[in-house]
Formats: sequence, structure tokens, C-alpha cells
Amino acid sequence: MTALPAAVRIVEVGPRDGLQNEKTLVPTADKIALIDRLSATGLRTIEATSFVSPKWVPQLADAAEVYAGIRKQPGVSYPVLVPNLQGYQRARAVGVTEIAVFTAASEAFNRKNINASIEESIARFEPVLEQARADGVKVRGYVSTVLGCPYQGEVPLADVVRVARRLHELGCYEISLGDTIGVGTPGKAREMLRAVAGEVPMAALAVHFHDTRGQALANILACLEEGVAVVDAAVSGTGGCPYAHGASGNVATEDVVYMLEGMGIATGVDLTKLVETGRWLANLLGRETGSKVTRATAA
Amino acid sequence: MTALPAAVRIVEVGPRDGLQNEKTLVPTADKIALIDRLSATGLRTIEATSFVSPKWVPQLADAAEVYAGIRKQPGVSYPVLVPNLQGYQRARAVGVTEIAVFTAASEAFNRKNINASIEESIARFEPVLEQARADGVKVRGYVSTVLGCPYQGEVPLADVVRVARRLHELGCYEISLGDTIGVGTPGKAREMLRAVAGEVPMAALAVHFHDTRGQALANILACLEEGVAVVDAAVSGTGGCPYAHGASGNVATEDVVYMLEGMGIATGVDLTKLVETGRWLANLLGRETGSKVTRATAA
Repeated sequence: MTALPAAVRIVEVGPRDGLQNEKTLVPTADKIALIDRLSATGLRTIEATSFVSPKWVPQLADAAEVYAGIRKQPGVSYPVLVPNLQGYQRARAVGVTEIAVFTAASEAFNRKNINASIEESIARFEPVLEQARADGVKVRGYVSTVLGCPYQGEVPLADVVRVARRLHELGCYEISLGDTIGVGTPGKAREMLRAVAGEVPMAALAVHFHDTRGQALANILACLEEGVAVVDAAVSGTGGCPYAHGASGNVATEDVVYMLEGMGIATGVDLTKLVETGRWLANLLGRETGSKVTRATAA
Repeated sequence: MTALPAAVRIVEVGPRDGLQNEKTLVPTADKIALIDRLSATGLRTIEATSFVSPKWVPQLADAAEVYAGIRKQPGVSYPVLVPNLQGYQRARAVGVTEIAVFTAASEAFNRKNINASIEESIARFEPVLEQARADGVKVRGYVSTVLGCPYQGEVPLADVVRVARRLHELGCYEISLGDTIGVGTPGKAREMLRAVAGEVPMAALAVHFHDTRGQALANILACLEEGVAVVDAAVSGTGGCPYAHGASGNVATEDVVYMLEGMGIATGVDLTKLVETGRWLANLLGRETGSKVTRATAA
């Protein structure tokens, strides 16, 4: 265990990981308004959208319009998810300068989702990484199912470490380790992070927890104690879980900021503005906010 | 920081702290059924009800009937809350063998709630503690508002330590430290527990978190790391917070058990039975369960 970080960078994934798993279709103008509001909270990284095929993710079919429409603020990054070279080119056509690629640590998850082995899935985006390098585009990598898989159950730590190391070697500046189905608990989260940090520098790692079983903040705390200083979260806890209906989504950014600031860890985020944005979004989605901090704060 | 405990005793407070703050009045027979169900999950301490005046807590006006009606299981304790000698005598009349007394660490909270200083509030239940000692009745002590107060805001650590030590000296075998309004974060929870453990043995301390701002499990984790091995929780996360309408209540026992067992810390609780009981209770109360583990588990 190391000293807690003095500051944490939050990667806001609500506009992408959140909205892609919400049933309500959000109009393009509102997506743009959401990102512009988030830009004003002090967040420095906001994943804006996904250039995955609209056939797979109809909620984000307007990726090009959204990206083109947002008011980019100096000092704020707006990465977008891309699955392949075609998506990459669509993203580049509207001026994207940072992307994210994704794979799973679970063989069964990759097989079921994209009918490919882990190695094949990585091979599919290798051309993207090459092109990004040539273009000077920064690439973030997601590894999903790091603490469990809806198909194979346990995911060997060795697989998580191997996949994270591959993404690092391929040039991803940061690897986000995701408990996609929210099954992890603090001891396992800590053990997983420690294993990966044995092969990839901690400064290149982020953690990504879904709050499906209420464990996200405790898992984040355990990982902070291991030295991680980048945390993914989604305003209003958007996202849900396609494998457990009615379940919670991403950990709510508001609740993460409340915890971190309460611990004296700087986030640079204005919690009041964030809570207002989360409430506005929940209202737009016609559902109760997933943030307990927001619920506890009088409107 | 010390090694994590190998086992944790959970003090189930749903039938008392949970139900006394729920709007729905639960029929006596259902309260008895709830406690009997909880007895079958492996829980060893179940706070059954409160002998506070029905004028203050109408939800638990049937305390005597509830206590008399439950099927006491060997090895399970059923403490009840008592505010004064009159409540103590009502409890003893139906055979109660363990009680709990309460005060706050915040002067303003005591003033506002019972129009007494902390010292006066303790003086009020000193006769109860004397009588309990004479009768061989075990006494648990609650200290509320240990991490913040709805009236005075910050609560000095010195006040928390002083009140906890007083209860210990007066013969309480265990002191439960409560973040009544759920404002605490892990660093402050850890610091508070460490300060109290400087004056009262850790083995005589328990932690009691409300999940108002989603911090409860993270706070519990920090306290486990400090060596606490007794955790209060309420099945289905019942309770709400009278100071923040729509806010979450006690931390859900299901989510605590999931975390602890996931960390290899034994609780002795059958999570499947607990989830079934929590779902049954939420249905009875006509509201969504406060447990994310239960929400993630298909009915």
C-alpha cells in the first residue's frame, strides 16, 4: 500500500458509456449541451461519444454531429470510442484528436460479443493504433471484465495483466481497467490492480467501476490506496448493466468527487455544478439520478 | 493500519433503526416475521425494536408485542433500544436481556432532539445502566453524529472520543459510532475511529453508517483497515434520513455481506436468504430495495 494520491483525474464517461446503455434516446442538441455543461465543471477529460457502428449502438448514431457541435474548452480532452479503422476515419473527419479502443480480458466475452479471441480483437484495432500514431492522435485503451465475466465467471488475473500490457506496448498512453459487470470487491480490485501494475506503470493505469452491487466507491478506495490516480465515472450514474436489468450503472461522478474531496484529494471539479448537471440529465432521461450525493442535495 | 479482521459480526438494525424511519407502518405480525426470517440467515445480533415512547416513534409502538412474539434462536441476541428507566422496565417486563442506549456527540443535536446537553443526556440513562448492571442485562451504547451534525455542522473529534469513553466507562460492552446523517468520507471515518480507539479498546467498538451520500461501504472498508470488526447495517437499506428527504437510509446488510465475503471476511450470513428477506421487506414497504446486490440479483 502506498500513500494516497494528492490529486485524481476523473475521466467522465457519461456521454458515452452512460448514454449508450440508457433506453431513452437523447436528442443530439441535448448531448452537446450535456458535454458543454460538463466542460464547465472543471472536468479535464470527457469521453464524448462512440464511432461504433450505429447498428450496434443506435443511441450514439449521431457521433459526428455531437463531436462537431461541442464547444471544446482549452485544457479539456474529448476522446471518442472507435472500434476499427472505419470508425477512426469517421472520427478524424470531424477533427477528433484523442480516441479510445477496447477489448475484454475474458475470452468468452470477446467470443460472444465480437466473435473473436482476445488476440484477434487486438489484431482488429492494431491498424487503428498505427494510424493514430502516424497522425499524432492519443489513444486510451479499455480492458473490460477485469473482475468477472457474465459468460465465463472468473477471469484469470494473468489474462488481465497480459491484455493490459499488450495495450500499453501497442502505444495506449493509459489503460482503463473495467469491472464491466460490477461484481468486484475491494480485496479483488486491489489484487488485480497490483498485478497489472507489476507490468504496466501505475501512472498509465485507470480504474473503471460499475456500481451494480454497490461496491464501486469501496473498490476505488482500495485502488487509490494502491496508488492509482485516474478514475472513470459517469455523471448521474448513468449506464445500467445489460446483464442485470434494473441494476445500477457506472459509478456516479458526483459521489466519486464527494469522496475524493472529502479525503483531501483534489479533483478540480466544482461539485455544485456537477450536481446541477446530473440533476438536469436525470430529468432529461426521465429517471431518478443514480447519484446519492445528488439525491441528498436539495434541488 | 492493521490487518483486516478474519471475521466481522454484523449488527442488524433494520427492524429498529430501519423501520422507525420508514413512512409505511408495518403490522406487528410482519415485524415478527421479519425478525424470524433474519434469525434464519445466520445473523447473530438483531436489534428488534425500541421502547422509546410511542409519542416519539409511533412506528414502534408495538415494541412489547414484537419482542414477545419473535422466536428467539439460540446464539442470537435481540437487543432493544431504551431511552430511560420507564422504557427499560417495559422491556424487562417482556423478558428483554440486552438493551441499547443512545446519545449524540454533538451538543446541538442533543439540545435540539431532547433539550439536554450531552452530559444531561448521559445522566438521564445512568439509572438505566445501574439497573441493567444489577439485572445482568448487557448494554450497547450508540453515539450518533460522529462525523457531522445537521445543526452544528462539524463535530469536534474530542467530543466523539469523550462521549464514547463515557459510555464505555459506564459499562456499555460495545459502542456503536454512528454517522447519522451520512456525510462522512473514508479519511474522516478512519481518523475518527482511530481517535476513539485511543481511549476505548477497538474490540469494544462498532461502526454505523448511513448511505445518504453513497459513502457507507467505502467508510466501512477504511474502518476495517483500522481493525474494527463489528458493523451495523439494515436489511434492504431501510431507514431514510429525516434530514434529507428522498435520501438513502442505513447501509444495506446485503451489500455489506457481499463486500465482506468477497474480501474473504467471514460473516456467518447466508446471502441468498438475506436477499430473499430484503426483497420480501421492500415489497412489504411498497418501495424499491435499498440494496444494490438485491437489485442485481434476479428475483
